[in-house]
Amino acid sequence: SNSTCSTIKQQDETILFHTGKTKVAFSALIEKGGAYGPFNTDVTLAFNKVFTNIGDAYKSCTGIFTAPVTGVYYFTFFYHAGGKHASLLRLFKNSEMIVRSSDHQTGSDTADNGGNAVVLQLQQGDQVYVRMPANHHVWAAENHTSFSGFQIS
Amino acid sequence: SNSTCSTIKQQDETILFHTGKTKVAFSALIEKGGAYGPFNTDVTLAFNKVFTNIGDAYKSCTGIFTAPVTGVYYFTFFYHAGGKHASLLRLFKNSEMIVRSSDHQTGSDTADNGGNAVVLQLQQGDQVYVRMPANHHVWAAENHTSFSGFQIS
Amino acid sequence: SNSTCSTIKQQDETILFHTGKTKVAFSALIEKGGAYGPFNTDVTLAFNKVFTNIGDAYKSCTGIFTAPVTGVYYFTFFYHAGGKHASLLRLFKNSEMIVRSSDHQTGSDTADNGGNAVVLQLQQGDQVYVRMPANHHVWAAENHTSFSGFQIS
Repeated sequence: SNSTCSTIKQQDETILFHTGKTKVAFSALIEKGGAYGPFNTDVTLAFNKVFTNIGDAYKSCTGIFTAPVTGVYYFTFFYHAGGKHASLLRLFKNSEMIVRSSDHQTGSDTADNGGNAVVLQLQQGDQVYVRMPANHHVWAAENHTSFSGFQIS
Repeated sequence: SNSTCSTIKQQDETILFHTGKTKVAFSALIEKGGAYGPFNTDVTLAFNKVFTNIGDAYKSCTGIFTAPVTGVYYFTFFYHAGGKHASLLRLFKNSEMIVRSSDHQTGSDTADNGGNAVVLQLQQGDQVYVRMPANHHVWAAENHTSFSGFQIS
Repeated sequence: SNSTCSTIKQQDETILFHTGKTKVAFSALIEKGGAYGPFNTDVTLAFNKVFTNIGDAYKSCTGIFTAPVTGVYYFTFFYHAGGKHASLLRLFKNSEMIVRSSDHQTGSDTADNGGNAVVLQLQQGDQVYVRMPANHHVWAAENHTSFSGFQIS
């Protein structure tokens, strides 16, 4: 069931768009009640508070966006993290690391922000997701850390 | 009059687009000559240097974007702030806080950057804006702190 | 030849889109093997690892995007930098500085992130690019510092 994913459904998810101009688009936050990580292994961030998921191409249980049609897409992520551990997020297209954002462990600077964006040509079935390597952390609370994407053409 | 809003008009604002493909889009900076805040109350940021405002849906006097048509929109903001006070910006859809970005007060790290983005399904009349809570500040100078949005479909 | 630009071609660049919905879009990273700068003069960042360049409007040798058609475009950049020197990137439309992002030199905070975005109305032939002033630096390695843009309408 969806409850195992702790998906936070928004009212807007139920609005349907069935015009000829409809494009795939999604936007979600990762909300885990505070710091997320560090872990012993790399993890894919399952952004679980979904604002928008037109075309249902983003799966909040896994954090993976799968292109429903071949096309050009824009993706962006933003994160917040405390300074106690290093932070590092990497956006992947299938197994290829595309863009990333990171910050060092710093005792004096107790908060870090980062993000990145990319335009990607995707074939139907290509997957895009954000991963955090082992021994890093991110702030997964208070609507800080997000992953969004939409089809350009 | 517009002068009470200290709106800085750009030459580009006068260019009109009247093709079938025209979409709502805006982009603006907040320019107040330096640090803005901290204040005793929450404020909506009135980004007053407008680069683009196709559809005139963004009002620089208030900082509020009002969706002229039901559809899917992308919004993003970026900010710069000094370290002397904490920084925190929150993007709202009507009365609901959607995404935010923040940084701590830090004497050793004298500058902070942040931002966030979201894809939102809006009904005609829905309002989107960026607010700064009391006791926080942002750097409103030198083209640093911006708010942009456009209709995806 | 292209080799003088040290352009890193991606497999995806060869995918062509010839539908009526095709729009101009590009995305590239600057990859120079580590810190880039500080230099004695301002430089335009030639983002040389190109992920996407639909319409071939972005030139990786120069870092300059030239609008092939009049329209509305979205641009965004993200950067990472060490704390040893100040960081500052400015996005230009022709000779006009539009948005920027910066951070101070800070011994205690050894890493900085920043970025910005803007929606611009461009006439055919208008140029958009990112410049770094003299005496500043940016981290040009590991897929951190990017420049992307696409046509909205």
